Amino acid sequence: MSASGDLQATRDASRKCWLETANDPQCDFPIQNLPFGIFSDTRNPTPRAGIAIGDCVVDLSALEAAGLLTLPAGGRAVFTRDSLNDFIALGREVWRSVRIQLSALLARETASSALRDDPALRTRALIPLADATLHLPVEIPGYTDFYSSKEHATNVGSMFRDPKNALLPNWSEMPIGYNGRASSVVVSGTPVRRPNGQLKRPDAERPVFGACRKLDIELETGFIIGRGNALGEPVACEDAESRIFGMVLLNDWSARDIQQWEYVPLGPFNSKTFATTISPWIVTLDALEPFRVAQPVQAPKPLDYLRHAGEHAFEIALEVTLRPQNAPQPTTISRTNFRHMYWTMAQQLAHHTVSGCNTRVGDLMGSGTISGPADDAFGSLLELTWNGQKPLELNGGGTRTFIEDGDELTLSGWCQGDGYRVGFGPCVGEILPAHR
Amino acid sequence: MSASGDLQATRDASRKCWLETANDPQCDFPIQNLPFGIFSDTRNPTPRAGIAIGDCVVDLSALEAAGLLTLPAGGRAVFTRDSLNDFIALGREVWRSVRIQLSALLARETASSALRDDPALRTRALIPLADATLHLPVEIPGYTDFYSSKEHATNVGSMFRDPKNALLPNWSEMPIGYNGRASSVVVSGTPVRRPNGQLKRPDAERPVFGACRKLDIELETGFIIGRGNALGEPVACEDAESRIFGMVLLNDWSARDIQQWEYVPLGPFNSKTFATTISPWIVTLDALEPFRVAQPVQAPKPLDYLRHAGEHAFEIALEVTLRPQNAPQPTTISRTNFRHMYWTMAQQLAHHTVSGCNTRVGDLMGSGTISGPADDAFGSLLELTWNGQKPLELNGGGTRTFIEDGDELTLSGWCQGDGYRVGFGPCVGEILPAHR
Repeated sequence: MSASGDLQATRDASRKCWLETANDPQCDFPIQNLPFGIFSDTRNPTPRAGIAIGDCVVDLSALEAAGLLTLPAGGRAVFTRDSLNDFIALGREVWRSVRIQLSALLARETASSALRDDPALRTRALIPLADATLHLPVEIPGYTDFYSSKEHATNVGSMFRDPKNALLPNWSEMPIGYNGRASSVVVSGTPVRRPNGQLKRPDAERPVFGACRKLDIELETGFIIGRGNALGEPVACEDAESRIFGMVLLNDWSARDIQQWEYVPLGPFNSKTFATTISPWIVTLDALEPFRVAQPVQAPKPLDYLRHAGEHAFEIALEVTLRPQNAPQPTTISRTNFRHMYWTMAQQLAHHTVSGCNTRVGDLMGSGTISGPADDAFGSLLELTWNGQKPLELNGGGTRTFIEDGDELTLSGWCQGDGYRVGFGPCVGEILPAHR
Repeated sequence: MSASGDLQATRDASRKCWLETANDPQCDFPIQNLPFGIFSDTRNPTPRAGIAIGDCVVDLSALEAAGLLTLPAGGRAVFTRDSLNDFIALGREVWRSVRIQLSALLARETASSALRDDPALRTRALIPLADATLHLPVEIPGYTDFYSSKEHATNVGSMFRDPKNALLPNWSEMPIGYNGRASSVVVSGTPVRRPNGQLKRPDAERPVFGACRKLDIELETGFIIGRGNALGEPVACEDAESRIFGMVLLNDWSARDIQQWEYVPLGPFNSKTFATTISPWIVTLDALEPFRVAQPVQAPKPLDYLRHAGEHAFEIALEVTLRPQNAPQPTTISRTNFRHMYWTMAQQLAHHTVSGCNTRVGDLMGSGTISGPADDAFGSLLELTWNGQKPLELNGGGTRTFIEDGDELTLSGWCQGDGYRVGFGPCVGEILPAHR
């Protein structure tokens, strides 16, 4: 079978795993997914590389040590590192080779499985997710956040500028983006402290210092750069997807009151830099391939450097839940889809580099808040409650305009296949009270 | 002698070096300076740590190997690395101890000098600057740029917004800053390619793609974080200076036409991310201490978290020259001083972290364009030529509104002492034509 045939087979909807939990149609991690992450566990506290399958993590360093995973000479022991960067830097052919090898090791159909049939190795290499601690999957040299949902940009423009001219003229010509703060990107599960900062009421003469009163989420996805580009050498739009390793969910926590006072003229700063949460598993573009769909029609037609033939959006269902402290159940506050995004990831990367900016392996690029057309498909509380004017009703009583202390916010995302789903796992953060 | 007395002695204006070129009153690198950098040379192409003295580099790894430089146990061989980050992470007491040891090794007054009197070691450890290649001194995990010159913000606001309300209301309340792009920070001497991007004339319906026509400098300084802070744990303004390792010159190259079209509402992106140049030597705060002066009076009085007692500005003379390709001589186009900056470095760092944002060793924080009150003290061509309306006359003929291909721009900076100066060395970049 050819390598491309092998790759195709890793996405076969009928392929099942000998680990039965992976075959549950609601499981985020079937054999078609095989997302990469960094984990440690109670027996071995050293962070190392793994993939998620069913309710387990497969320890890739253990598989390689057992001779079950072949890497090129320069890549040996790459899975023992505490980030995926060195693995990712080996290049797309290696990502694909590892995916093909893993799928074969885990497939029920595979005639011989050295992993399945070796109880000692299974104990070493297959760790229950419940026993694992998940870490940031990559060291992130740079973080950029885009603003590519037309619905979100229109909503925000209506609220803060002019409902009649909500969308600024540059928005339809380029994927507007800005530099984010890489140091404060944290992995799902990390508590997030409510920020303090400058707050100014419109009628006040001067700002006061205090805790943010309009703490918000932004429902986003992010993509991870798999192959960088040199300074001064832009990435062509048609070539851009080949440089993307995979995707995560991303919560771009935002302090709306701090943001409104600080953001003119140089953009958001303290209102965003206190924390950005990403999900721990990187779902590869190879796993997302079956869920490729057409992007929205773009009018005006983009300038040449932003053009690409074919389909470059992905059908990814997205949900946000909010659970107050000690509440028995969460409330789903938003349901939307990544396919609504106006600008594609390829266009974002082409635009990012068009002036010559270099990118590096591990760079994180956020999509921007993903809002759909319906009122319950908005990706932020700012939009869902229309800046606090329309409180949300919570299951079990209570309402929310913005986030309160102790609230736990969870993003979820998955691609629905035929009898399985390729999911991201949760992207969770609980809000701690501000320092006094 | 006490450690603080030893530190004071390293700044003694009367101290001379046995390397006579260091005693030239015009030399940037007298014995009072001792700035740190990373270099390689024709005999040894491995980048490693050095300090500049007179017309030479002292190879710190060679000094340590020869037993002339004592580091704590955890810091051994730290000078053999290709960035200063690990050295800086050893902490301020170690920076100071190394400074004191180096000053003693290099002082003419020192009774015995194991370096001066060992010809073989001198050949190994003392490399002419002319034979050295200078590299980025630190690996930069994060780059932030501020906007802290009142004159600059007023000039820009007058040109692009409203001359009557040039300064936005938030400007006087906080050191406005934004996240920059760390990947494209390059060391002095690296050629800079003119960026392409979207350009839109005010009367045009749509933008066109093309080479920037309003390429500009921004004369800035930058400071390097020497001790980071944890996520969620702000740095107090009074404590902020102790976390700064030192300063560099910084040229925040800017594409004004790209910037004007892209920057609303999220700030500059492609117009800045193509390159930022810094000078190769980090001048420590310990070397700058004698040049501390009072910052401008701040009115309104800043909020509590931005207050610090005492003097927190530094008297640093700054100059910009422009030399067209093949021109025999440069033209000085700006002369100003860092002491004009409204917000101090300590206030910038306190503000950066007030919402909980973490910083890391090696982070770079740009001052923002440094414009003084006089018309020839502006730190950008945008201001010097008032957006191209008042061309500058060049020595030897010709004029400039913005930068042309082949132009070489050089920033210089120094603190004038009594018979010596503590200088930064040049921060240079030549502009290459845009890709077609």
